[in-house]
Amino acid sequence: MIKKRIGSQTIKFPNPPSIIGTSSIVGPKEGDGPLKDYFDIILEDDTWAQESFEKAEAKIQEEAIKLAISNANISMNDLQYLVSGDLLNQIISSSYTARQITLPYFGLYGACSTMTESLSIGSMIVEGGFADKVVCATSSHFSSAERQFRFPLEYGSQRSFASQWTVTGAGATILSATGEGPYITYITPGKIKDFGITDTNNMGGAMAPAAIDTISQHFKDTGYNPDDYDLIITGDLGLVGKRIVLDLMRKEGYDLSQNYTDCGIKIFDGVEQDTHAGGSGCACSAVVFNGYIYKEMLKGNLNRVLLISTGALHSPISTLQGESIPGIAHAVTIDNLKD
Amino acid sequence: MIKKRIGSQTIKFPNPPSIIGTSSIVGPKEGDGPLKDYFDIILEDDTWAQESFEKAEAKIQEEAIKLAISNANISMNDLQYLVSGDLLNQIISSSYTARQITLPYFGLYGACSTMTESLSIGSMIVEGGFADKVVCATSSHFSSAERQFRFPLEYGSQRSFASQWTVTGAGATILSATGEGPYITYITPGKIKDFGITDTNNMGGAMAPAAIDTISQHFKDTGYNPDDYDLIITGDLGLVGKRIVLDLMRKEGYDLSQNYTDCGIKIFDGVEQDTHAGGSGCACSAVVFNGYIYKEMLKGNLNRVLLISTGALHSPISTLQGESIPGIAHAVTIDNLKD
Repeated sequence: MIKKRIGSQTIKFPNPPSIIGTSSIVGPKEGDGPLKDYFDIILEDDTWAQESFEKAEAKIQEEAIKLAISNANISMNDLQYLVSGDLLNQIISSSYTARQITLPYFGLYGACSTMTESLSIGSMIVEGGFADKVVCATSSHFSSAERQFRFPLEYGSQRSFASQWTVTGAGATILSATGEGPYITYITPGKIKDFGITDTNNMGGAMAPAAIDTISQHFKDTGYNPDDYDLIITGDLGLVGKRIVLDLMRKEGYDLSQNYTDCGIKIFDGVEQDTHAGGSGCACSAVVFNGYIYKEMLKGNLNRVLLISTGALHSPISTLQGESIPGIAHAVTIDNLKD
Repeated sequence: MIKKRIGSQTIKFPNPPSIIGTSSIVGPKEGDGPLKDYFDIILEDDTWAQESFEKAEAKIQEEAIKLAISNANISMNDLQYLVSGDLLNQIISSSYTARQITLPYFGLYGACSTMTESLSIGSMIVEGGFADKVVCATSSHFSSAERQFRFPLEYGSQRSFASQWTVTGAGATILSATGEGPYITYITPGKIKDFGITDTNNMGGAMAPAAIDTISQHFKDTGYNPDDYDLIITGDLGLVGKRIVLDLMRKEGYDLSQNYTDCGIKIFDGVEQDTHAGGSGCACSAVVFNGYIYKEMLKGNLNRVLLISTGALHSPISTLQGESIPGIAHAVTIDNLKD
């Protein structure tokens, strides 16, 4: 019996950390999408006058962190830790950002699950009494991700139906031991699930089993049902992954048809914007959460949300070596009430 | 005033987590070095019959985790989390290991600082009441690191004087809310320091400023002096970095000449084994800690140790883009007494 745990995999915070500020910065394409009114900054130039896409991504993450601090009406000195990660090799966007931020820094790699991985670790640091305030952040950039994981843009490769579009942007969340909410009330950190998918153009399919495992476990551990949530939203499964989640969750005995969607579906108009299966990347769930969800919670239009960022933990080398794609999903409950 | 913090950057655990078991597995070269009697397994073949160096590294990490669990006389079901990371792009060694381990998994990227990053986060998870037991692990492999960060071995490149030798191996530590010690009593998580070094063959020089910053801050926060420790040991600064630490710590007012060394110096006989400035890699501090230090603490030959794993948070791409190397160092106090 561990004090703050319920069921086999979930933590229930006796003193839920409060979100006291967020930020979201996106590129031009995201700023043309259906959620454009929710983002703090929409860039006109996705290089933000930097010399490379990688440097642009680091600048976007750095500015997102500074903006979240400003939006929370606090200063850098009020924070104790930066918890962040991204998709790039050796998470250089986060580490070069951390060089500018001057806080003690925990670097994470959770691929596109990073937003809820950082919120989970950040919440434990705050609720455990180790910090008063931490900032959790992540970023991704379409052009840095394409050239690292797939092909340089100059090749003009044709995109498959199941492929997704990496979101350019960054999101940051300030967690505090005190505050008026919304609160992080539960976390259900995920296990790796790998059903043998080797097609790196079908990330949604590769990550869906992990999402299903974590969401089912969350319901079992907490006793919540799908209709206890105003919104259940995965990170970047896209259209392909969403369909798998709906189908297989029904087999697990949970009907998600009323209130489940995916950040990758929300962020783009797939037909108008030609993004195929939807958005992806660390920034996908980061900007949808820190932009859209957070602001709708403050307005009271959403009161309890289950956010499940999803990550595909392969590398181009593991794929070339014939490995399948391990998926992971970490769930976080954000609630306007402490419980 | 935050409950469990002292000074500006250090956490003092009211109920220090206990280390109840460790493991260390190394390659043939490490098994020929001065610490050979301390390692649990010395491989005769550093591919461990796997098809690639990357798969070999994952197997080494997986076996290290299973061995630590066995050495602690517990079973996988007694653990709640795996906290691990490594040097490879998208930390594939850790993620493919996590696929086999079936625990909820937090992936980290801290380069060669991963051992103390994982011990820091693992300790907070246990001491915060979120888990009874966690396993912290990391690995590196000379051949996977050389081809990713420098040149494929087949090129036969000549090594510079300041270059270091990536340790092949893995170490794992089981932390528990209860136990007979040794205990993790303090952690001082580090900030990034970057003094502008761009030579990726001089990692020791690049990481030394971060080590100095973290060690000085640790002494200021805790009130400890160097002679309160039986051993102060950095992760992989090697001969070049060690000299910088000794010189600059003296300028900060701390004489480390009596009890300071570096895991990268301990693990190889630099002259006999032709390892130039010494060992490096995530496994360097991992196997020296989980092998040598832990066993000497159990014997009572060491009673209080300050371990400071050090990381260089660049990537081959950031180097090509002209960036300098950001260094980080996380310090952890391991004590046979609770304080």
